[in-house]
Amino acid sequence: MSQEFASTLLENAVTELSRLPGVGRKTALRLALHLLRREPESAEALGNAIINMRRGIRYCTVCHNISESDVCPICSSVSRDPSTVCVVETVKDVMSIENTGQFTGLYHVLGGVISPMDGIGPDQLEIGSLVERVAAGGVKEVILALSATMEGETTDYYIYRKLGLYDVAVTQLARGVSVGNEIEYTDEITLGRSLLNRTPFEQSLRR
Amino acid sequence: MSQEFASTLLENAVTELSRLPGVGRKTALRLALHLLRREPESAEALGNAIINMRRGIRYCTVCHNISESDVCPICSSVSRDPSTVCVVETVKDVMSIENTGQFTGLYHVLGGVISPMDGIGPDQLEIGSLVERVAAGGVKEVILALSATMEGETTDYYIYRKLGLYDVAVTQLARGVSVGNEIEYTDEITLGRSLLNRTPFEQSLRR
Repeated sequence: MSQEFASTLLENAVTELSRLPGVGRKTALRLALHLLRREPESAEALGNAIINMRRGIRYCTVCHNISESDVCPICSSVSRDPSTVCVVETVKDVMSIENTGQFTGLYHVLGGVISPMDGIGPDQLEIGSLVERVAAGGVKEVILALSATMEGETTDYYIYRKLGLYDVAVTQLARGVSVGNEIEYTDEITLGRSLLNRTPFEQSLRR
Repeated sequence: MSQEFASTLLENAVTELSRLPGVGRKTALRLALHLLRREPESAEALGNAIINMRRGIRYCTVCHNISESDVCPICSSVSRDPSTVCVVETVKDVMSIENTGQFTGLYHVLGGVISPMDGIGPDQLEIGSLVERVAAGGVKEVILALSATMEGETTDYYIYRKLGLYDVAVTQLARGVSVGNEIEYTDEITLGRSLLNRTPFEQSLRR
């Protein structure tokens, strides 16, 4: 292998790059040669950005979102409503919901959904800490914003049962026709749920 | 944008990763979150491998292949034949030919081929330094191992003309049916060249 590359420095870079998801050795070599062709500063910037990110980012002790401090800016913000907690699967989902600009409460990142096929049970997820947050009081509503898949809905139900002891409203994201989608191409289960959960038309006028 | 990410460290890493060829912002975010999920050592290793590669690798002053020293291990090897120089387009081509184990001479990396459409003329390539190497004496054969495309063959011809003044044999990689390919799917130009350049059958028995 070292003969193949003629440089252990290049070989190291290729090996490390090929550990990234979706990057094989051929792609890793292409990326490494690209970095060699560009000005040295850009490789330094990339390397340092990766190292600094990993050193500086930890997980919020309250909501488990990524954070540069013990408690993330969302959890420590005074302008957000701590009585509403939105439960999501991943850090990426927090970003997606934040980008809607429609939510002013706090989050709770589970780290996934219950999936026996993948060996993920409730204990591997941040469900216990969610129950503790609710038990500590002050939370009036828990919004379940998990995937509308079998695993997501199983997790929804599991959390719903776990929170049954507490005086808290448990809600779920509305299921319905995606905005922009044609009825013809909407699956029948979604169509059925959107019919059952139909909303007064005036609501859509207000948006 | 910084609001989108809630962390400037993450945003920086995503921005730098998305400068890589074929990596968009979505992929960059996926890679960054993957690095955050793994143990810290792996992000350090990746970052340092990139930085060290860029700092440590330069180009061989003789053949323009990548090297960790002024003259690369191939050019400075005593077990290689300095009278044969194989002309290739890129560093990757050196690796490919080295992996065949069939070549014991030296290389000369042009950095591309003449391509007026892409604004690449002879002056942007290492053709002048190739002529100087030949003019310095000691080179008996120059093997042209450029792509069998119009641009490659134009460059072959250009180099052939430039070396006309010197007492050096100029050869080209054989054109023919790819090993493992069916005749039915071989294009007619290749078929024609392979017919013209047919070889005694006993040669294939010796391999």
